[in-house]
Amino acid sequence: MSGWLKVIGLGPGNEALITPEAQAALDAATDAVGYIPYVARLENRPGLVKHASDNRVEIERARHALEMAAAGRRVAVVSSGDPGVFAMAAAIFEALEEGPEDWRALDLEVLPGITAMLAASALIGAPLGHDFCAINLSDNLKPWALIEKRLRLAVEADFAMAFYNPRSKSRPEGFVRTLEILRDACGDSRPVIFARAVTTPEEEIRVVPLTEARPDMADMRTMVIVGSSQTRIITREGAPLVYTPRSA
Amino acid sequence: MSGWLKVIGLGPGNEALITPEAQAALDAATDAVGYIPYVARLENRPGLVKHASDNRVEIERARHALEMAAAGRRVAVVSSGDPGVFAMAAAIFEALEEGPEDWRALDLEVLPGITAMLAASALIGAPLGHDFCAINLSDNLKPWALIEKRLRLAVEADFAMAFYNPRSKSRPEGFVRTLEILRDACGDSRPVIFARAVTTPEEEIRVVPLTEARPDMADMRTMVIVGSSQTRIITREGAPLVYTPRSA
Repeated sequence: MSGWLKVIGLGPGNEALITPEAQAALDAATDAVGYIPYVARLENRPGLVKHASDNRVEIERARHALEMAAAGRRVAVVSSGDPGVFAMAAAIFEALEEGPEDWRALDLEVLPGITAMLAASALIGAPLGHDFCAINLSDNLKPWALIEKRLRLAVEADFAMAFYNPRSKSRPEGFVRTLEILRDACGDSRPVIFARAVTTPEEEIRVVPLTEARPDMADMRTMVIVGSSQTRIITREGAPLVYTPRSA
Repeated sequence: MSGWLKVIGLGPGNEALITPEAQAALDAATDAVGYIPYVARLENRPGLVKHASDNRVEIERARHALEMAAAGRRVAVVSSGDPGVFAMAAAIFEALEEGPEDWRALDLEVLPGITAMLAASALIGAPLGHDFCAINLSDNLKPWALIEKRLRLAVEADFAMAFYNPRSKSRPEGFVRTLEILRDACGDSRPVIFARAVTTPEEEIRVVPLTEARPDMADMRTMVIVGSSQTRIITREGAPLVYTPRSA
């Protein structure tokens, strides 16, 4: 029996958003590898060994997964959302490229999942309904100047914008600066969506005008979506709907 | 019994990529509304009326779906991929905003799906593994000058780029121009991925350097992904892997 490695997206939290393809791979795995809270989402069963690790050790985790697959294990590397969007897939390929040549012959697949921005977008309407960009606001691995440049160009392009990892306890100043840049560059009161822990019991969503968005409205479990200049709000009883028209 | 409207993402084609949430909604619907090939994907069953319509009539289709839900039907509006990404959700909200006030009280939900760019990305590696943008190259509803502006700014921001609707028979010149702009603005041979009919029996994927990309490599069923300046190719036996590192 030969090993494999599948990089699997678990979706944003709701089990009904895990694809049958992903579920079948999880059911066939001998080992599950990932960040502690994601591995904790998997059911315990005989024959499945869980390897949970802390944040910020993605490359070590990727190497471990590749080593186990090379040794004949059936390894599921799990990410929240989609593994190809600010998650484990890129780390796996970084480790693969730097690793032993024979890793390139491994049976390796990426199985897509529902990424947080699209789950959040669906819950509030269709704010990413036309051209948009996705930016990781963490400056752990790239210079802050690059993030700032992308923010300004994204506004100039009039993209709707989805921000992952907006704010950590250790680096709260980045999101403060992000909101300042957006207010400066946009100069309007376009809607900002703060969508926290979407599709889980802790889900919280609110929509505020950019002029009223505050840094403490986001934490690391929050997805932030900023409309383009054309994004519209439909008021109704209860939560409003936010969408970006197809002509935007 | 009161009506509802759910805007449902069927994913890129493979039935194992339809979420259980979407499948449950399809099973409970009395009416399915959508573009002919997407409605054709649904199983026929007693109690389900199919309303298939041609392309380019999205607003009429949206109004019809809203009218049926208001009349007490359980209406599934189906899109390929994710309904919030260049699909039916924005059209539904456009029709809702222009329509009668009581439509705003409808029981209305958007159910996310696996969008084509993320399915294509997973098949080739992780080319959208860091900051990226998604642009609809169709100029049916927006001026070509806006598309061109976004392309140039996206290159300046060094986003990886995903292009939907790259080329139709009636407007072949847009994608010719897109490739010219990219070659001019990028000035390098970064990888371009042509991913056609992903996860279906007609699936075809190829990776070429930007300098060798040709307009006829894409049609309306093709998703085009262009790497950032940092996107890497891992060669191996068989298809190469393409990924954008987390520091890009």
